[in-house]
Amino acid sequence: MSTANGVRALVRRTHEERVLSALRAHGALSRSELARLVGLSRTTLSEITAHLLSRGAIVVADTDADVRAGSGRPAERLALDPGAGQVIGVDFGHRRVHIAVADASHDVIASGREEYANGAPWSARVSTAFDLIDRLSRETGVHYGALQAIGIGVPGPYTGKTGESSSVGWKTELAPDGVHDAFEERFETPVFVDNNTRLAALAEASNRSDIVDNLVYLRLSDGVGGGLVVNGRLVSGSRGFAGELGHVTATASGVACRCGKRGCLETVASVPAILAACRDRGVAIDTLDELGAAVAKGDPDVDGVLRDVGSAIGRVLGAAAMTLNPREVVIGGEIIRIAPVIVEQAAATIRYELYPIPAEQPLVVRPAQLYDNDGALGAIAAIFHQSPLLAGYPEPAAPASQHQSQRSAQS
Amino acid sequence: MSTANGVRALVRRTHEERVLSALRAHGALSRSELARLVGLSRTTLSEITAHLLSRGAIVVADTDADVRAGSGRPAERLALDPGAGQVIGVDFGHRRVHIAVADASHDVIASGREEYANGAPWSARVSTAFDLIDRLSRETGVHYGALQAIGIGVPGPYTGKTGESSSVGWKTELAPDGVHDAFEERFETPVFVDNNTRLAALAEASNRSDIVDNLVYLRLSDGVGGGLVVNGRLVSGSRGFAGELGHVTATASGVACRCGKRGCLETVASVPAILAACRDRGVAIDTLDELGAAVAKGDPDVDGVLRDVGSAIGRVLGAAAMTLNPREVVIGGEIIRIAPVIVEQAAATIRYELYPIPAEQPLVVRPAQLYDNDGALGAIAAIFHQSPLLAGYPEPAAPASQHQSQRSAQS
Repeated sequence: MSTANGVRALVRRTHEERVLSALRAHGALSRSELARLVGLSRTTLSEITAHLLSRGAIVVADTDADVRAGSGRPAERLALDPGAGQVIGVDFGHRRVHIAVADASHDVIASGREEYANGAPWSARVSTAFDLIDRLSRETGVHYGALQAIGIGVPGPYTGKTGESSSVGWKTELAPDGVHDAFEERFETPVFVDNNTRLAALAEASNRSDIVDNLVYLRLSDGVGGGLVVNGRLVSGSRGFAGELGHVTATASGVACRCGKRGCLETVASVPAILAACRDRGVAIDTLDELGAAVAKGDPDVDGVLRDVGSAIGRVLGAAAMTLNPREVVIGGEIIRIAPVIVEQAAATIRYELYPIPAEQPLVVRPAQLYDNDGALGAIAAIFHQSPLLAGYPEPAAPASQHQSQRSAQS
Repeated sequence: MSTANGVRALVRRTHEERVLSALRAHGALSRSELARLVGLSRTTLSEITAHLLSRGAIVVADTDADVRAGSGRPAERLALDPGAGQVIGVDFGHRRVHIAVADASHDVIASGREEYANGAPWSARVSTAFDLIDRLSRETGVHYGALQAIGIGVPGPYTGKTGESSSVGWKTELAPDGVHDAFEERFETPVFVDNNTRLAALAEASNRSDIVDNLVYLRLSDGVGGGLVVNGRLVSGSRGFAGELGHVTATASGVACRCGKRGCLETVASVPAILAACRDRGVAIDTLDELGAAVAKGDPDVDGVLRDVGSAIGRVLGAAAMTLNPREVVIGGEIIRIAPVIVEQAAATIRYELYPIPAEQPLVVRPAQLYDNDGALGAIAAIFHQSPLLAGYPEPAAPASQHQSQRSAQS
């Protein structure tokens, strides 16, 4: 029923699809990495890549000179045509928006940050973001004609489908559906929205070519939030509330939380709570800078507060780690750089909580590596690694020309 | 490059693949369910199913008379040819093995249970299972010539790749790699192994045609174990230890646990711990039957113990639910049927712990629906819904003939 030609075309198409998917997910790869990932023989892979190179769907990105230094001829690395598609990551915070632009090789080719008033309305935040995206284009020469997708991080729960309309703790920050639509309308490209702390978790789990399969992320800030990567994918939960580690009970008889419960981790481990606990011990500290000075001085009362905070974090993260058996537990937020003892103490408590799990497979507990741009980078990682926006692309070789014609229609 | 014939063949093949995948994952489906799942028009779907029916790759399984009673002509349901493949689910417990056999329509066509000595060596457990599989064949006439895959549940952590060789709490029960290999060698079919409590979680999350996306499962027995379904998939964690809710700390200053920590949930909520707590309050109870009698009598001391147990469970599951935002929390084990107040009290505590999450999206907290065969059913669900064993099938239309030729070669 299917002709021999048809079968050959089908087979080649399937192989091409696998090569393009691998490059889309992992960025630039050497031929041997590609062969391993797609499971094709060297000979078949050569035919496929030669064909894709001749069509301009992929390019020789660079030579892998770092890795192969001194080994004679360096290995070529192949990548999707970087001009064939950019993605934009946007992270809306309480006081600022961060934007990063990456090309199809996963290289960040532009990024920036712009502030707005604390708790500015969403219309103002969105227009600030549009202006920043335009400015980045002017300053760096990046045009968005080949834009493939936009990922957006917002504070508060977000299911990725529709904004939740009411919630005790998060009411003021919930992003309206209009944010998604405004970007979609302006850029005529697929858009997805997720919680920004969750995206930061994915950014911490991502490196150039891979994702840590299982990771628990906690961020200490004005509030305490978190995010989970399970089986290599972000976890939203059934209604978009997964990862709210700040509202896990840390001390049953604790103080009232803004969420309506008592003793939530946030009442102990948010930055304002930590500063207040220092003052309760008679140490006059109002800012993170002052906290840093007290830490540098070795103030024993401050050290005691920070160790208590670390223990409370460790109890909550220890339970999460016993539940999820992650490879890494990551603690982020500016205060972690100022007071690293929090992570040390949390790690010690988590180690105890995980005592039953064999010690030859130690969990990594570490401070976050990324800074304030983690949400924007996480949005980009989400697009490359797990968004249906790109995975569902009907014809993998086509985006370049498709978007180019779109660009010419716009100009 | 590809002829028009080739493109048509490719498109039809793609559509067929989607229809077969849907039937493989969901069992028998009506045409309208199929159309919705695969996203094809009625006309295209009719062509595809007519073609698959004419080739014998799918069959009319039954008419959906239950659902459509009284609505005139009942809807036909389509399914993969049931003779085209069976799967076997095996659940090795401490004292017995459960086996269930399902056909390609997901119907359980044979099942049974056989006991062995408590903690029998794995060689004895495996040969007991082989004998039971043979007996089921003799008694029900099921032959395994069209066997597609075997799923096996074992106590203790299991990564699905290699047995962990040492562990404080689980040492005596860890299944050796030999279990996997023995089944593979005997049946010459793909085999996968996972923790049996985890498989029970998947069984609770599964119904005939779907999987609850996010579910937390806890089982109270001689020990306390658990399992997680996240994003519709079982969670193993980075090293196969995910779901060990029994060793989350429930009371920081609690009694020593066999795992080496203190105050683990298992020290409070295992069946032996619950019976001991009753005795500590002066109620002489040694068995579940005696506990049932005391519950029926309304003994206030026993009620107090059970409510304390429920609260401890609720604290641990509440933290897990705040972390994962599941749709359902399920508590299983024989004791739950005898003392349902445990689930009631746990549900109340979990509701408090989840207070910040909007109440219009209530979490379901419920007792397990399945009985002791949940592990075997979960192994079957894992094969149909998420094992790479079937998903990786190279030619979806082929299994019938392929396996028939294998069968005739054996007979």
